[in-house]
Amino acid sequence: MKSWLEKRAALSPDQIGLYAGNKNTWTFREMNEEATELAELIAPYIQSREPVALLITNQPQSVFLIHALQKIRVPVLMLNNRLSTKEWAYQLKDSRAQLVIFEDQFAIEADRAVSIDVLRSSKQKNIEVFEQEDVCSIMYTSGTTGNPKGVMQTYDNHFASATGSAFNIGHQPDDIWMCAVPLFHISGYSILMRSVIYGIAVRLYEKFDERRIHADLVNGNGSVISVVTTMLQRLLDVKNERYHPFFRCMILGGGPAPLHMVERCHDEQIPVFQSYGMTETASQFTTLSPADARRKTGASGKPLFPGEIKIVDEEGKNCAENVIGEIFVKGPSVTKGYLNNQQATASAFDHGWLKTGDVGYLDDEGFLFVADRRSDLIISGGENIYPAEIESVISSHPAVKEAGVVGKKDEQWGEVPVAYVVLLEELDQEVLHSYITERLARYKHPKLYRFTNELPRNAAGKLVRRKLKEEINHESV
Amino acid sequence: MKSWLEKRAALSPDQIGLYAGNKNTWTFREMNEEATELAELIAPYIQSREPVALLITNQPQSVFLIHALQKIRVPVLMLNNRLSTKEWAYQLKDSRAQLVIFEDQFAIEADRAVSIDVLRSSKQKNIEVFEQEDVCSIMYTSGTTGNPKGVMQTYDNHFASATGSAFNIGHQPDDIWMCAVPLFHISGYSILMRSVIYGIAVRLYEKFDERRIHADLVNGNGSVISVVTTMLQRLLDVKNERYHPFFRCMILGGGPAPLHMVERCHDEQIPVFQSYGMTETASQFTTLSPADARRKTGASGKPLFPGEIKIVDEEGKNCAENVIGEIFVKGPSVTKGYLNNQQATASAFDHGWLKTGDVGYLDDEGFLFVADRRSDLIISGGENIYPAEIESVISSHPAVKEAGVVGKKDEQWGEVPVAYVVLLEELDQEVLHSYITERLARYKHPKLYRFTNELPRNAAGKLVRRKLKEEINHESV
Repeated sequence: MKSWLEKRAALSPDQIGLYAGNKNTWTFREMNEEATELAELIAPYIQSREPVALLITNQPQSVFLIHALQKIRVPVLMLNNRLSTKEWAYQLKDSRAQLVIFEDQFAIEADRAVSIDVLRSSKQKNIEVFEQEDVCSIMYTSGTTGNPKGVMQTYDNHFASATGSAFNIGHQPDDIWMCAVPLFHISGYSILMRSVIYGIAVRLYEKFDERRIHADLVNGNGSVISVVTTMLQRLLDVKNERYHPFFRCMILGGGPAPLHMVERCHDEQIPVFQSYGMTETASQFTTLSPADARRKTGASGKPLFPGEIKIVDEEGKNCAENVIGEIFVKGPSVTKGYLNNQQATASAFDHGWLKTGDVGYLDDEGFLFVADRRSDLIISGGENIYPAEIESVISSHPAVKEAGVVGKKDEQWGEVPVAYVVLLEELDQEVLHSYITERLARYKHPKLYRFTNELPRNAAGKLVRRKLKEEINHESV
Repeated sequence: MKSWLEKRAALSPDQIGLYAGNKNTWTFREMNEEATELAELIAPYIQSREPVALLITNQPQSVFLIHALQKIRVPVLMLNNRLSTKEWAYQLKDSRAQLVIFEDQFAIEADRAVSIDVLRSSKQKNIEVFEQEDVCSIMYTSGTTGNPKGVMQTYDNHFASATGSAFNIGHQPDDIWMCAVPLFHISGYSILMRSVIYGIAVRLYEKFDERRIHADLVNGNGSVISVVTTMLQRLLDVKNERYHPFFRCMILGGGPAPLHMVERCHDEQIPVFQSYGMTETASQFTTLSPADARRKTGASGKPLFPGEIKIVDEEGKNCAENVIGEIFVKGPSVTKGYLNNQQATASAFDHGWLKTGDVGYLDDEGFLFVADRRSDLIISGGENIYPAEIESVISSHPAVKEAGVVGKKDEQWGEVPVAYVVLLEELDQEVLHSYITERLARYKHPKLYRFTNELPRNAAGKLVRRKLKEEINHESV
């Protein structure tokens, strides 16, 4: 089939599809021309159906690159640009990426890499197209094991996510979706997909600048925005004017909002839709409407049509209402598995249901309450941080016996990682810290170290992070 | 998976899903209770996965029955209630229907049939659910051969049709879709599917009463309506007031609207979306927006996202812009084929493209213009009439040698069927007519007979209906 952008350009050629900066706009026809040109430039580099990695920032050019790769029928591996070079190297190897396309500012080391500037000076060639069941995009997330895994999103997944969202929040042909979240996260990438599927414009921001976004919300320059809790807090901090009535929906992800925030939004008539989702569900999977927000404080809403949720106990049986268990999800937006990792895929699914690892319950009206994010997940400024990944790096230092990492509450970031470390021999904290910073992205760097003689473990010898978390958060009160 | 209605009732239990008559409303929760009760009553009659036929009118109970069958995981065969008993018998046999559920007013003859009243007095049993790739509904249409074929629509087909429509005309959570078209046609059935998928209400009408519908359009009792050309004409005939601003979209099917009608709608600010579709595409496949209606007079619009259209010449090659050929369609809303008829299915498709049999062209902007409906199709009051089917019945009379049927233009119905008959021996027109009326639905009865000595045929001996059509329509001027 033709690419989604190609079809959209045929359907709505003169509709604006992208706003960026103060004055720059592109119609869907212009976007398609840009993407087609890039696709023709990339095509000569393509040798297989393995992924092509993108290492980019939130630029219009990145939007065109993403669509260009859809025209060539290769999955795109979206590299988180905050990672360390070692982390990038892991993902490139694990995904068997055939090529990296990168912005010049990034110092990527890879066998086959081409900068966008070099690409733009190449020659042209014919291009291919995709089928809906093809893998469209890959994003790596870590799990309990600490090894990042490549989550595959098919075109069908993205399509189902886009339709479920539209049936929930409505679809207005003149909508403008504001994208200040990274394109390499599912939250940002999915906005680009919705844009071509719905035929609506994206307003792209290079970064989250609360004053700029506040002004756009007041001036009616966007109708929908996706944010994480810390972004919402920053918006509330600068809010001094009513938002324009054209603005109709704020999708809030990245952990539940605290009660005071929900109430402030209600008082200020900010249409907040709290949501729960993950890379594996191609973005939001459940959403709570503003109408229910105060009545169901702390809830994450109901699954988007036609997704399904069930809560399962440790014996694999369905939990009754209001009983906590593991959250299982099923539906057309759920990933078909992890790239090149049949074992991880097999253990993540149970009869077609994805075991999220998150814990929660459904109340008597079917609203989901997420009690605890999976595997002691730390959510810091919207980024997911998996303790096991950081612990694994710390423990790899020869002077370290073992480590335990937990989230400490933080006004600005929601949570920040803190490391408990048991040493084998004397080690300077600075030395340890620089060992870690070489190997991990900045947002994963521990903000505090606690050196201790032993870590709390349960009878089976398993680390009990909950105790460390209680300790560190008690300290801070 | 759970049935769509079950999920919708879980998502929006208190939202009104159905309006009927002056005061009757049902929430999605109440609809689900009605449908569940019916499903439990029907379940004991179910012996296989073969279709269950429904012979019903536009009643709330019919809506619940349709959803009940989705809960039992059997396809529904929607019988056109205007057909003759012989036509019903053909469809029941051909589809291998295991059961007919009928309203008492209809005199159906079938091995296994149960009236709704009898059903309501039965006992209860457990129920099953469906998967999206299951066949959801079956509707018979005739083709060039004259034998009706059962078009299968899967849940996936209905879902794709609903999403394509929403991305085109927009989706408002408070929409009310007015349904005055028959539930046994794809135009009516698809409204019920959209209702549960979108979570919006249907306003159901037992029949098309232009005064009643005019009043509802004026009073803001509906926001979207599906009509055929003759219904629109009847609405224009009684229009004496401005429609309410809540009314935002009129989907017009059943053949292109004449220019004077398009202009009248423009003058009266009626938001008409002309469309092209068929039972095989689970309703509208292309739609023309009001914004383009006058600029593209006679066009049927562009395919709904992500459907595709191409125009193919007699050698199977793609036609250039503005060159007439056969219309091929492809996309997730297109049927997977004809029930129990592999041969018809195989000959209807070409490498995944459905050959519609209709003739038309795409202009330089990609707008579809339908030049001629398939196989000399006669469209009378929104019903499709296939000449070959009527000819076959007429020719089966012992005194008839052969027959040719064509459409004659008609103020009220758009077209009516006229029969050219060559006799073997003397035959009274009244005798012939009552022979036909026993065997065919009323709307297929010829309104005029022309007895002649021979029919126009081409060099290959094939009937040239076009000549008869010119003759009869010239006569009438």
